[in-house]
Amino acid sequence: MTPAGLRALLDEVRDGRLDPADAHGQLLAALRAQPLEDLGFAKVDHHRPLRQGFPEVVLGLGKTPEQIAAIAQQIIARGHPLLVTRADEAAWSAVRARAADALYHPVARAITVPRDVPPGHGTIVLVSAGTSDVPVAEEAAVTAELMGNRVERVYDVGVAGIHRVLRERTRLESARVIIVVAGMEGALPSVVAGMVSVPVVAVPTSVGYGASFGGIAALLGMLNSCANGVSVVNIDNGYGAGCVASMINHL
Amino acid sequence: MTPAGLRALLDEVRDGRLDPADAHGQLLAALRAQPLEDLGFAKVDHHRPLRQGFPEVVLGLGKTPEQIAAIAQQIIARGHPLLVTRADEAAWSAVRARAADALYHPVARAITVPRDVPPGHGTIVLVSAGTSDVPVAEEAAVTAELMGNRVERVYDVGVAGIHRVLRERTRLESARVIIVVAGMEGALPSVVAGMVSVPVVAVPTSVGYGASFGGIAALLGMLNSCANGVSVVNIDNGYGAGCVASMINHL
Amino acid sequence: MTPAGLRALLDEVRDGRLDPADAHGQLLAALRAQPLEDLGFAKVDHHRPLRQGFPEVVLGLGKTPEQIAAIAQQIIARGHPLLVTRADEAAWSAVRARAADALYHPVARAITVPRDVPPGHGTIVLVSAGTSDVPVAEEAAVTAELMGNRVERVYDVGVAGIHRVLRERTRLESARVIIVVAGMEGALPSVVAGMVSVPVVAVPTSVGYGASFGGIAALLGMLNSCANGVSVVNIDNGYGAGCVASMINHL
Amino acid sequence: MTPAGLRALLDEVRDGRLDPADAHGQLLAALRAQPLEDLGFAKVDHHRPLRQGFPEVVLGLGKTPEQIAAIAQQIIARGHPLLVTRADEAAWSAVRARAADALYHPVARAITVPRDVPPGHGTIVLVSAGTSDVPVAEEAAVTAELMGNRVERVYDVGVAGIHRVLRERTRLESARVIIVVAGMEGALPSVVAGMVSVPVVAVPTSVGYGASFGGIAALLGMLNSCANGVSVVNIDNGYGAGCVASMINHL
Amino acid sequence: MTPAGLRALLDEVRDGRLDPADAHGQLLAALRAQPLEDLGFAKVDHHRPLRQGFPEVVLGLGKTPEQIAAIAQQIIARGHPLLVTRADEAAWSAVRARAADALYHPVARAITVPRDVPPGHGTIVLVSAGTSDVPVAEEAAVTAELMGNRVERVYDVGVAGIHRVLRERTRLESARVIIVVAGMEGALPSVVAGMVSVPVVAVPTSVGYGASFGGIAALLGMLNSCANGVSVVNIDNGYGAGCVASMINHL
Amino acid sequence: MTPAGLRALLDEVRDGRLDPADAHGQLLAALRAQPLEDLGFAKVDHHRPLRQGFPEVVLGLGKTPEQIAAIAQQIIARGHPLLVTRADEAAWSAVRARAADALYHPVARAITVPRDVPPGHGTIVLVSAGTSDVPVAEEAAVTAELMGNRVERVYDVGVAGIHRVLRERTRLESARVIIVVAGMEGALPSVVAGMVSVPVVAVPTSVGYGASFGGIAALLGMLNSCANGVSVVNIDNGYGAGCVASMINHL
Amino acid sequence: MTPAGLRALLDEVRDGRLDPADAHGQLLAALRAQPLEDLGFAKVDHHRPLRQGFPEVVLGLGKTPEQIAAIAQQIIARGHPLLVTRADEAAWSAVRARAADALYHPVARAITVPRDVPPGHGTIVLVSAGTSDVPVAEEAAVTAELMGNRVERVYDVGVAGIHRVLRERTRLESARVIIVVAGMEGALPSVVAGMVSVPVVAVPTSVGYGASFGGIAALLGMLNSCANGVSVVNIDNGYGAGCVASMINHL
Amino acid sequence: MTPAGLRALLDEVRDGRLDPADAHGQLLAALRAQPLEDLGFAKVDHHRPLRQGFPEVVLGLGKTPEQIAAIAQQIIARGHPLLVTRADEAAWSAVRARAADALYHPVARAITVPRDVPPGHGTIVLVSAGTSDVPVAEEAAVTAELMGNRVERVYDVGVAGIHRVLRERTRLESARVIIVVAGMEGALPSVVAGMVSVPVVAVPTSVGYGASFGGIAALLGMLNSCANGVSVVNIDNGYGAGCVASMINHL
Repeated sequence: MTPAGLRALLDEVRDGRLDPADAHGQLLAALRAQPLEDLGFAKVDHHRPLRQGFPEVVLGLGKTPEQIAAIAQQIIARGHPLLVTRADEAAWSAVRARAADALYHPVARAITVPRDVPPGHGTIVLVSAGTSDVPVAEEAAVTAELMGNRVERVYDVGVAGIHRVLRERTRLESARVIIVVAGMEGALPSVVAGMVSVPVVAVPTSVGYGASFGGIAALLGMLNSCANGVSVVNIDNGYGAGCVASMINHL
Repeated sequence: MTPAGLRALLDEVRDGRLDPADAHGQLLAALRAQPLEDLGFAKVDHHRPLRQGFPEVVLGLGKTPEQIAAIAQQIIARGHPLLVTRADEAAWSAVRARAADALYHPVARAITVPRDVPPGHGTIVLVSAGTSDVPVAEEAAVTAELMGNRVERVYDVGVAGIHRVLRERTRLESARVIIVVAGMEGALPSVVAGMVSVPVVAVPTSVGYGASFGGIAALLGMLNSCANGVSVVNIDNGYGAGCVASMINHL
Repeated sequence: MTPAGLRALLDEVRDGRLDPADAHGQLLAALRAQPLEDLGFAKVDHHRPLRQGFPEVVLGLGKTPEQIAAIAQQIIARGHPLLVTRADEAAWSAVRARAADALYHPVARAITVPRDVPPGHGTIVLVSAGTSDVPVAEEAAVTAELMGNRVERVYDVGVAGIHRVLRERTRLESARVIIVVAGMEGALPSVVAGMVSVPVVAVPTSVGYGASFGGIAALLGMLNSCANGVSVVNIDNGYGAGCVASMINHL
Repeated sequence: MTPAGLRALLDEVRDGRLDPADAHGQLLAALRAQPLEDLGFAKVDHHRPLRQGFPEVVLGLGKTPEQIAAIAQQIIARGHPLLVTRADEAAWSAVRARAADALYHPVARAITVPRDVPPGHGTIVLVSAGTSDVPVAEEAAVTAELMGNRVERVYDVGVAGIHRVLRERTRLESARVIIVVAGMEGALPSVVAGMVSVPVVAVPTSVGYGASFGGIAALLGMLNSCANGVSVVNIDNGYGAGCVASMINHL
Repeated sequence: MTPAGLRALLDEVRDGRLDPADAHGQLLAALRAQPLEDLGFAKVDHHRPLRQGFPEVVLGLGKTPEQIAAIAQQIIARGHPLLVTRADEAAWSAVRARAADALYHPVARAITVPRDVPPGHGTIVLVSAGTSDVPVAEEAAVTAELMGNRVERVYDVGVAGIHRVLRERTRLESARVIIVVAGMEGALPSVVAGMVSVPVVAVPTSVGYGASFGGIAALLGMLNSCANGVSVVNIDNGYGAGCVASMINHL
Repeated sequence: MTPAGLRALLDEVRDGRLDPADAHGQLLAALRAQPLEDLGFAKVDHHRPLRQGFPEVVLGLGKTPEQIAAIAQQIIARGHPLLVTRADEAAWSAVRARAADALYHPVARAITVPRDVPPGHGTIVLVSAGTSDVPVAEEAAVTAELMGNRVERVYDVGVAGIHRVLRERTRLESARVIIVVAGMEGALPSVVAGMVSVPVVAVPTSVGYGASFGGIAALLGMLNSCANGVSVVNIDNGYGAGCVASMINHL
Repeated sequence: MTPAGLRALLDEVRDGRLDPADAHGQLLAALRAQPLEDLGFAKVDHHRPLRQGFPEVVLGLGKTPEQIAAIAQQIIARGHPLLVTRADEAAWSAVRARAADALYHPVARAITVPRDVPPGHGTIVLVSAGTSDVPVAEEAAVTAELMGNRVERVYDVGVAGIHRVLRERTRLESARVIIVVAGMEGALPSVVAGMVSVPVVAVPTSVGYGASFGGIAALLGMLNSCANGVSVVNIDNGYGAGCVASMINHL
Repeated sequence: MTPAGLRALLDEVRDGRLDPADAHGQLLAALRAQPLEDLGFAKVDHHRPLRQGFPEVVLGLGKTPEQIAAIAQQIIARGHPLLVTRADEAAWSAVRARAADALYHPVARAITVPRDVPPGHGTIVLVSAGTSDVPVAEEAAVTAELMGNRVERVYDVGVAGIHRVLRERTRLESARVIIVVAGMEGALPSVVAGMVSVPVVAVPTSVGYGASFGGIAALLGMLNSCANGVSVVNIDNGYGAGCVASMINHL
């Protein structure tokens, strides 16, 4: 109920066209209006597209295929695009039983049902350091593309052969926002951010062994970046990076 | 040397107007051109405004007042705005001896010399959780303002009294990008990001005691945020957040 | 032997009704009385209902089905209610072979045999942040219900959609004690505790990935809560939270 | 504005006794009513006594004496009791300049101005392990007493001489809730909780050296307590424990 | 070669009975004498019984059954007792093919071939906190018994029911040295050490979940013990504790 | 009250020589007998010499000189030897005002008042790795000597020059128990324990910088020692090591 | 294009033998020349032999057999030697389908295709502490041998039997560079480095349990080595150590 | 006594020129010869120049000026060069009282007395990332220069402006070994190592704040370097890096 709607209601009460008891009920109901669909184990938040610009996304981790499919159905039924992350093929089967056009992205481990969404203004350039970082990068790519962004991939340009990333200067400079995905020492975002004047969203990956500690080394490297414009999301959180980049690209 | 300049040079060689040896020397010199001013202990990077949209910023931590002043002088001499972070009053005195219009921001512990810079497109809303987080928030504010942004402060709206931040919904929705500064459990960015559709740059602070571990608790809380659109900078890194937000606001 | 019993015994000795040697023996025996039943690998503590208000609870983790069943049998034989946590279906089978009315709670991974116990005074409201936190929440629910409490579940109200928990204010205010279960950044207890005046028992879960570090992020978030009235139990320790809440609800 | 008040207003509008425009203004104002007093650097939350049963408490850490005194004055002016924790004598001087009856508790490092508050129902027994834990224990005691509780102190009963705590069984059993403060290995809460049937709020302290890691050893010991009924607050957080215990004691 | 042997050799050289070149060779050979049997992947150290009072013990972890059996054979061939820790039944089969009297201890996961060794002087009392700690305790027991010690087991006497360990005071006081095995908060060694005047060897176990962090909580608890006479071995290192206790018991 | 005393009391009751009410009182009093002297902030435990073989030792850390002196006086008044660790000269002055023969050991930062105690059976050899480890080693030495042990010091024999410790083989072999104090990588206990057949008590020190993390590197090195017979005490805990070694040497 | 080549090109332009437009194209092409072969998921860096003295090495971890084989083929096709680390037999099968002479080293888990490379100047002595460290040591050996070095293995000489490594003094002194591989407490590099005057490359392994924390204890021990000449590579990084040692041996 | 000397002695015995008893004494004395000078608190190791190629170096940390001067005097008296690290001006004064030509390097915090030593074969290039890393870099430089190496400094070339280090390619390629000093994210060694074919010794510094955790971020970054040829020394250990590099440069 908007302020204007509130005024209209009060006018109706004054003019006798609306009974105060009814107005009372309408006012209380408006305050209590339920934008949540309750599945028992989950409440699907259908107001999110209004509030956040994109419908609720389903984290597949720790949910059964049936739970995923049930939530997915609620989202699709409203005509919203669907994104399920950290999903295996079993979850895809369950979703496809309810949405025949559901796609599976095996490298990104994501399920999508694309729908029309407002396009982003520029290009998101997606940089990754090594071959093993590709699954996380692809999760970011699938996320950003589903959200209406043009994504350009620049893969396998880690800092140990610094000429590889330097050769991509033109593409980097063409970006409106850059996502950099790297494991091990996580140095690539610092190098990239020093070459451009747009924001860099850094994603540490759990790629590595020994003292990489499941991505802590890369995470700390990125948080301590000496370059300007770097901010960081959780380890392996390709989805989060895609989401931040998409928001920036839609400004 | 641009591609066009290169062609012109080659034409001159062909026409006999330029000796190949001279051309050789000019080409090598161009490749080796020095945009760095070497002070012995530091190399001031005067190309940064071109490359990154803002001149080099001086981290005062671990530098003597004299070192700070020497670097500052090089920056000011080129007509660039000056920002020194983590600086005390002694550093300010040394800088003022060379730039009479240098300002000191005691809460933010920053020195600035403002110059005309391109303005940002929207407003950066700067949210902080508690009174003790204000110095870090102010570092972000001084940074963003010097870089040409309009900054609106919303302070002391921590999650323990959730109505405080809820009352600010209108102001939050007016932002083009939001910075959220919080210590202790670092929960505020999740709440704010859930209310808006613009990117949130989260800054953990070292405010707290015991198991806050100098900001680790807040940092982890923010990295694990269940809300979309949150990315994180280093603990107490108000400057970094201001810089990321300014880049986004200038897109 | 109570102080009154001791006095009675001494009176009997004085009156010649009891031989000092017998009294000596009775006194020593009382001091040495064995309230522990020794199964070789475990000592079942049958005095615990007197001392702690509820019989010994069996942690299934790291015990064989046979060990669990043997301990369970000792507890049931005394007419005590049974609770086995972290138990799988194999353990349930072993227990059912000795107690046909044993129930299995698959989500909570718990085995119970309910018995009459004193009821708690009010309601325990059990709040959880996300779908993946439900198993830990259910362990708390099963525990609290077996101990005689009325439990009201409020699930999937994480802080990223703050309106979800705000809509539950009435239910939260009706509680005598609240349990809040959350993983990832663990921010929900701070928000809930700021809305009520009753104690909040916070349970971090290991839900999350990357820098959640198996629940450390949530644990630290809860320990550093800026809200009053929050205390914390171990990661994933639904049982412990149910137990603390039940004790409070029985005061 | 209560539901009843809302109905009355609507009735007035219907009866023509209240102009719709005025009603509109009243409704909007009620929704925007400001229970927060803004001091620039802090927003004093005067609704907290209603919401949480006790007025806002001031954490002195990281605030100047002047900031503390300004906030204190706002609280006292409403007739609320005052508690400032982590405060030194300089802060006390600043507060006393505005409230002559302010007390300083040097061991607890707290400032108080007592006011009449509802009394708790039973006794809070406050147990501490060693002499060095006393400052944290006293912070808990001062907090609980100011909030209207009877507190009984049982100090220096660490587990290395287990008979010391065993001798206090009667006093422990007389408690409605127990606070246990311990550093080093933090074992005392487990022993105490095994002896009683009431909740135990455990406070780890930073007392110790070497591998105590500023209280981490004690914190982990308490979180992993094998006894029922133990919940934990932050390291050195005597205030938090006093607050939780008071809430339980007022149920 | 002893000093006397050296002198005899030199006398032979002087008397012309031994050629200097031969003497030279003998002296160099003596210095290079090889008490190690080289299996390619391992050097069996047959001097250890002389140097350390017990032959080399085989850590099964990370060795193949064949490697274990080959090393075992070398040890048995010299008439030494055999102990293989962290061994499974496959390793036992491989050892039994070479030593028919090899025993397997499934709870302790150890293989032994007992031989006559000097007996210890007193009794080692072996205390464990919970049922899940028994495998580590049994590794200590098997070790100590094979090394010639009398071992008395006191199991399942954790601190949550403090009367359990108090009832064992007599047995504890009868010990020459005590091993205490505990997981979770690791508080039992402090309680036991406070009751006796003999050394306590504490063994943290990885039993627990959540913030036990695989035994870190128990380890820190034991290192920070406020009781005298406690020293600590590695997490789950039952063998190490049995070995230290045996050395003490043989003094 | 011994079992024999209990029987005598009961005989007196039977014979009418003792009134049951008096007997009742005596029995209750005996159970409640107070071996603790209460100073308000501390309870001095005068039964400890009987229970643990040595009177209570005072940890100076975090106590005022006055508190230390008050506790010291209670201990000296009973004719017990005094040991205060982590004490500065101010504490010594306060103690000397009450005990003129109190000694101060500046390197060990300890105060002692020696008294006759039972001598240990053999020699404690005390080995330290570097010059900076000497203060911790001296705390161990002062402790062990006050407890009646002969202590032989072998200092500055770190593993970087392995011949230094090898040259001490004879002295090491003469020990009944060995204390090894080392910082940095903490490798010395492994080398020493491999050379002897007696227990080695290892003390990590906080000596080092960078990744020594205040002694964690040395602590972990010692806990993971591949040599037999090593057990470990807390970082910098010279007192604890002296105490364990003395207990072993008195067996 | 070398400086000399650049001069030659300019001379041709001057002499009219080369058209400026062609020269322009040649210059731009040279600057853009692509030494990277793009397989989509990976860019093979064929300039590395020139830049780093050895072709790109393939980390098998996290790559499919097909991906490994495709990269391997590119490397072999240029006549470069091949090294794949962390590879299983499935990867070997895939590689062998393209290079029949590919070898598999099961202990080192490496695939190699040897080619002629410049030999190192001296011997690399490779020392390992225990049998379980051999796989990491063998990875270092295979790496160093493929790179043209003579490698001498000295295995199972851990510090618990210090005579084992002392007996190898002659071999250690014959080395040009030494690799020391050790788990658990990681003390061996300190001992070895103290015996020689050549650099020691230390490799911590994840061998151990409990507080070895997957190699952290060994890593910290080596970083804190009190001996000169020790530098450290990542946990279990045999390849890295072999590579560093080979570089030193080729100087 | 060398093998040749041993043979000569035996020949003398055979020829009757040396009495066997004298030879006996000479042999025993040689075996017992004392290359250590014992100062009570330290043993100066005068054999180290023979064994390690450079005399003992004094770590000033935790030693008094008097202790430093006493050790220094022993070293200088033998004509050895002196290096004291982590020394302040007070230590320099104490050393100068005994060696008038002692130099103080305030940035490196080192005291030196240079003496003729064998020169290294090539140049050590010393690279540092930022101005705040210079003290650690200078410690490495002073160390390497004193040990006879030519050192070339390349300072302030951090990766945020990647062109800075790229411009130094020629100098980097001229090195025989490179030391890279960096704090914050520690990415510079990866970039440098990817540009050259010589070993890179990486030194993490404690420069940074927040999640740099006193150099842990840089340390982990360097250990996880994806470039070949990188090995790492302790945080802030400039001396260690200088020492390793000098050893390599003297091969």
